Amino acid sequence: MQQEFASTLLESAVTELSRLPGIGRKTALRLALHILRQDEATGVALGEAIIDMRRGIRYCRECHNISETDVCPVCANEARDHSLICVVESIRDVMVIENTRQFDGVYHVLGGVISPVDGIGPDSLEIDSLVDRVRRGGVREVILALSATMEGETTNFYIFRRLAGTDVTVTQLARGVSVGNEIEYTDEVTLGRSLINRTPFADSLPAF
Amino acid sequence: MQQEFASTLLESAVTELSRLPGIGRKTALRLALHILRQDEATGVALGEAIIDMRRGIRYCRECHNISETDVCPVCANEARDHSLICVVESIRDVMVIENTRQFDGVYHVLGGVISPVDGIGPDSLEIDSLVDRVRRGGVREVILALSATMEGETTNFYIFRRLAGTDVTVTQLARGVSVGNEIEYTDEVTLGRSLINRTPFADSLPAF
Repeated sequence: MQQEFASTLLESAVTELSRLPGIGRKTALRLALHILRQDEATGVALGEAIIDMRRGIRYCRECHNISETDVCPVCANEARDHSLICVVESIRDVMVIENTRQFDGVYHVLGGVISPVDGIGPDSLEIDSLVDRVRRGGVREVILALSATMEGETTNFYIFRRLAGTDVTVTQLARGVSVGNEIEYTDEVTLGRSLINRTPFADSLPAF
Repeated sequence: MQQEFASTLLESAVTELSRLPGIGRKTALRLALHILRQDEATGVALGEAIIDMRRGIRYCRECHNISETDVCPVCANEARDHSLICVVESIRDVMVIENTRQFDGVYHVLGGVISPVDGIGPDSLEIDSLVDRVRRGGVREVILALSATMEGETTNFYIFRRLAGTDVTVTQLARGVSVGNEIEYTDEVTLGRSLINRTPFADSLPAF
């Protein structure tokens, strides 16, 4: 049902809001009316934050992560290990890995994974630029941190092949039982992999 | 978990987006990253639509519906029946009733219903201004179109009492079986009311 609006300003705000993923016209209208109920400064702050973000953020020349500068803070940080590149699908994954505080290397954001069904081939992704980075030298290890899906595995394999001529070590995230999960509810493929890739128990003990 | 962001621009967009109802920080981040993936014009258009709406929309002096002018298009329309006022809770209800194309009177938006639990008393609502409108004369009928809830019924009764001294006719929306609903699944209270308020069958036939 096409709603009729008393105001073209409301109409266009609803139209723009409903372009967002998971937000239909009904939700967009609810959001717009909420914004109207708040004081003017709150609504204007939301609009300006969106504009400033869209205009101000660009992509790091090196790793293609979002950045407000030509080179992102991670790539610009001398204290980080620039010989260790973690390859991820998206900006989101960089944030998640940064939150673990277990990684002190740099990143390379592909912008997705190879998925012929969705029309995403290797050329749509930042794979050539990764190979260039490695070829330029100074890179010791490339960690593939892509999703453990068919598309992720395909992309892993493609990148591995593309890096074959170089002397870089290519690794991938360990597959295994999630911390906190019960064995009974772990899927068979993961359980099988975690058996094959079992690790010495002594390694899991804290160092004294 | 508090996310850490690579960019303060992203951070503030996520903070502002997560103020919207039903949108947490995770969804806000998803929306922000979506906006970043779109071209710049789309993101800027969204922000500007929100700002323009918030700055441009005010409330009709007569009926308190949203309007871009001092008096809304409905109240300004000479062709509509100004002696017939439909009292509704919100702007949303005006739209829904307009969409039925069954009403040619004018509106009065209360801004809610009386709900002591939520701290909403008669003074928080546009009830005094409704009584004023009726007292100024020229109003034949007030239709109460509030929700069929405890709060709605309380508000109906309060307005009815406040209008007692005037010679206006106060009516309310018919309660009955929803069109398209099966009797078996209609709740008892509604069914009971629809029996008491049964209407002559001949009235439902199209006129020849």
